[in-house]
Amino acid sequence: MKKETSMPTMKDVAREAGVALGTVSKVVNGLPVGESYRIRVEDAIKKLNYQVNSYAQGLKANKTYTIALLIPNTKDPFYASLTYYINLALLKRKYRMLLCSTDFDSKQEQEYITMAQQNKVDGIIGLTYNPNLIIEESTPFVAIDRSMGPKIPCVASDNFAGGQLAAEKLAALGCKKVAFLRIGSSLTNEPNKRKAGFENGCLSCGLSYEMKILDDGTPYQEFDNFLSSHIYDGKLSFDGIFCVTDNLAYYIVKTLKKFHIKVPEDVQIIGFDGIRFFGDKDYICSTIIQPVSEIAEMCVELLLQENMLTKPPLVCLPVSYGYGGTTRETFDL
Amino acid sequence: MKKETSMPTMKDVAREAGVALGTVSKVVNGLPVGESYRIRVEDAIKKLNYQVNSYAQGLKANKTYTIALLIPNTKDPFYASLTYYINLALLKRKYRMLLCSTDFDSKQEQEYITMAQQNKVDGIIGLTYNPNLIIEESTPFVAIDRSMGPKIPCVASDNFAGGQLAAEKLAALGCKKVAFLRIGSSLTNEPNKRKAGFENGCLSCGLSYEMKILDDGTPYQEFDNFLSSHIYDGKLSFDGIFCVTDNLAYYIVKTLKKFHIKVPEDVQIIGFDGIRFFGDKDYICSTIIQPVSEIAEMCVELLLQENMLTKPPLVCLPVSYGYGGTTRETFDL
Repeated sequence: MKKETSMPTMKDVAREAGVALGTVSKVVNGLPVGESYRIRVEDAIKKLNYQVNSYAQGLKANKTYTIALLIPNTKDPFYASLTYYINLALLKRKYRMLLCSTDFDSKQEQEYITMAQQNKVDGIIGLTYNPNLIIEESTPFVAIDRSMGPKIPCVASDNFAGGQLAAEKLAALGCKKVAFLRIGSSLTNEPNKRKAGFENGCLSCGLSYEMKILDDGTPYQEFDNFLSSHIYDGKLSFDGIFCVTDNLAYYIVKTLKKFHIKVPEDVQIIGFDGIRFFGDKDYICSTIIQPVSEIAEMCVELLLQENMLTKPPLVCLPVSYGYGGTTRETFDL
Repeated sequence: MKKETSMPTMKDVAREAGVALGTVSKVVNGLPVGESYRIRVEDAIKKLNYQVNSYAQGLKANKTYTIALLIPNTKDPFYASLTYYINLALLKRKYRMLLCSTDFDSKQEQEYITMAQQNKVDGIIGLTYNPNLIIEESTPFVAIDRSMGPKIPCVASDNFAGGQLAAEKLAALGCKKVAFLRIGSSLTNEPNKRKAGFENGCLSCGLSYEMKILDDGTPYQEFDNFLSSHIYDGKLSFDGIFCVTDNLAYYIVKTLKKFHIKVPEDVQIIGFDGIRFFGDKDYICSTIIQPVSEIAEMCVELLLQENMLTKPPLVCLPVSYGYGGTTRETFDL
C-alpha cells in the first residue's frame, strides 16, 4: 500500500467528522461548539494527522506565531538554560522562536525590535544591558532582569530574597564574619538587589559583614588583593563569603586554594544562579538557585497575554538554596 | 532638532548617491557595477543608515533568510556552544535562526523538515538521533554527527583522530594499561569512531587496553561494577582511562574518588568534547576538544552553498588536546 503523502486539509477533517467546515474552524481556533461536535472533529484531526497551518492562521490574524529571543549568548550556562526553557515554553504553545545571540551588540538588538514593530515577529523576550535601546510602548516586549520602561513587564528571580537567604544560610551554618563580593553592570537592574538583601539578612542575623563591589570590566584579580589583605597569619578573617554569581564563586574558590585557605573548612562560600555541571548534574558550588523554568514560563505567558492592562511591571519569582560542596552540610554525600 | 524616524528607502539612497535606482539595487545584491558607483552608493547607505529589507528581498527571491536549527536542547554545554556558534555564523550572514530544542521528540523534528519543504525556512541544520526521520533529498539539510543520507552533508569532528590522539596522549604520559569507556546511541554515527581510533592508537603505541561499551539508557552505575572488578588490593589495574565524553569522565572521576583511587596520581583520565566551566573558563577534565566554532561555520557554509554538486557527504574537522587536571602535566598551575 502506498502511503498518502499530501497533507490533509481542514476540508478533509470536515468530511471525516461529518460536520461543516465552519465547525472545524471553530474547534481549531478554540471557539465554543457543541461537545459532541468537538469530540468528532478532534477524533478526525487525530485520525488524519491534520496539522494546523499556523502560517495560514497568522495570515488571517496578522500574526507570525514567531517570537524573538535576545540573549547575550548561549555559551554561558545560565543563558543556555534560560534559552532552553523559553524555547520549550514557546514550542509547547506552537510558537516558533528566533534566536539572536547579541553578544551585547546593541545594533543587533535594535534590529530585532524594529522587526517586532513591523509585525515581522509577534513579540520579543529580551535580556539586555543596552541602556540606549529604544522600545516603543506598543512593542510587545518582556524584559528579563532589567526594567526597560514602566509599560514593559520585567521578569526576574527574587534577588533581594536570594541575598537575604544567603546571609541566613551562612549564619545558620555557623559563620560569624562574612563578605559579599560583587562584579557586574552598574546599570539599575534586578540582580543588584542581591546586595541589599544580603545586607538586610546580615543585620537581622547579627552577622558582621564587609563588601567588595567591582564594576563590569574590572579584572577579577582585584578580589585577590581584597582577600589577601584580609589574611593574617595564614588565616582569612572571614568564615563565610557570598559571591554575586556561581561564576565568581568558582573563581574565588580557586583563588583561596592558591592562598592555602580551605573551602568549606576555613571559609564557606555561597554563589548565585544554580549552575550545574553539564547542565543537569551536581551544582558547581553551594548556591542560590534561580527558578529558570518558571522565569521562562512567566516571560512567555506575559508576552502572549492579549490584555495589556493586566501586565505587571515586575514579577519576582522565588529562589531556593542548593548544596554544592562549598558549604558545610551534614547531608554531604 | 527632531530626529527623522521613518526608515530610508532604496529611493532615498539613489537620490543621496545621485545614481539610478537600479544601480543601488545592484550594489545591495552584490552584482557588478562600476567602482565609483559602488563607492557612492555605499557612502549613501552609510550616511542614511539604510537597512536592507531582507524580507522584501526574500519575497522576490522566494527566500526567507531563515534557517532552523534542530538540536536536542541547549542545556547541555556542547549543544549550547554549538547553538551559539551556529547562531553567530548565521547572523553574520544576515540570516535569522529558528531554534527548535527537540528533546529527542521526532514529531517536532519532522514538523520543521516539512517547513523546509514548504519553503517556510531556507534550510535546516540538525543534530538528531531519530532513525525514522524522513528527509527528501531536495530538502536543504546539513547534519551534525550522524549521516542522514548520501546526498545530505554531515559535519563532525574527526572522531577517529580524536580517539587515536587520546591513546597517544595516554601513552606519552606514561600509561601502560588503559581502558575505554563508552555509553551512547547504538545507531551508526560519527562519535562511534572514537572507539576505533582509540584501538588503533593503542595498537600502534603498544598499549594494552580493555573496553566497556554500554548502550544509551543503561545506568552509569554499570561502570562502577566494571571498575571495582578491576581493583585488586586497593589498586586499579588501569593507569589510564579514555571516556567517550567529558560528561562520563566527570562521573568516572567521582566514582574513583569513592573507591579511594586518586586522579591523576593513580590513573589519568581523558574525556572528549572540550567542555569548560561556565562555557569559557578551565576545562572540566583533560579532554579531546571538538572544534565547535569551525563545525558551526562549516554547517552554515554548506547549507547556504547554492551549488549542491559540490557538497561533500562527510566533513571531519580536526580536534586537539586540552589539559584539564585529570592527567599529569608539567605545566599544571
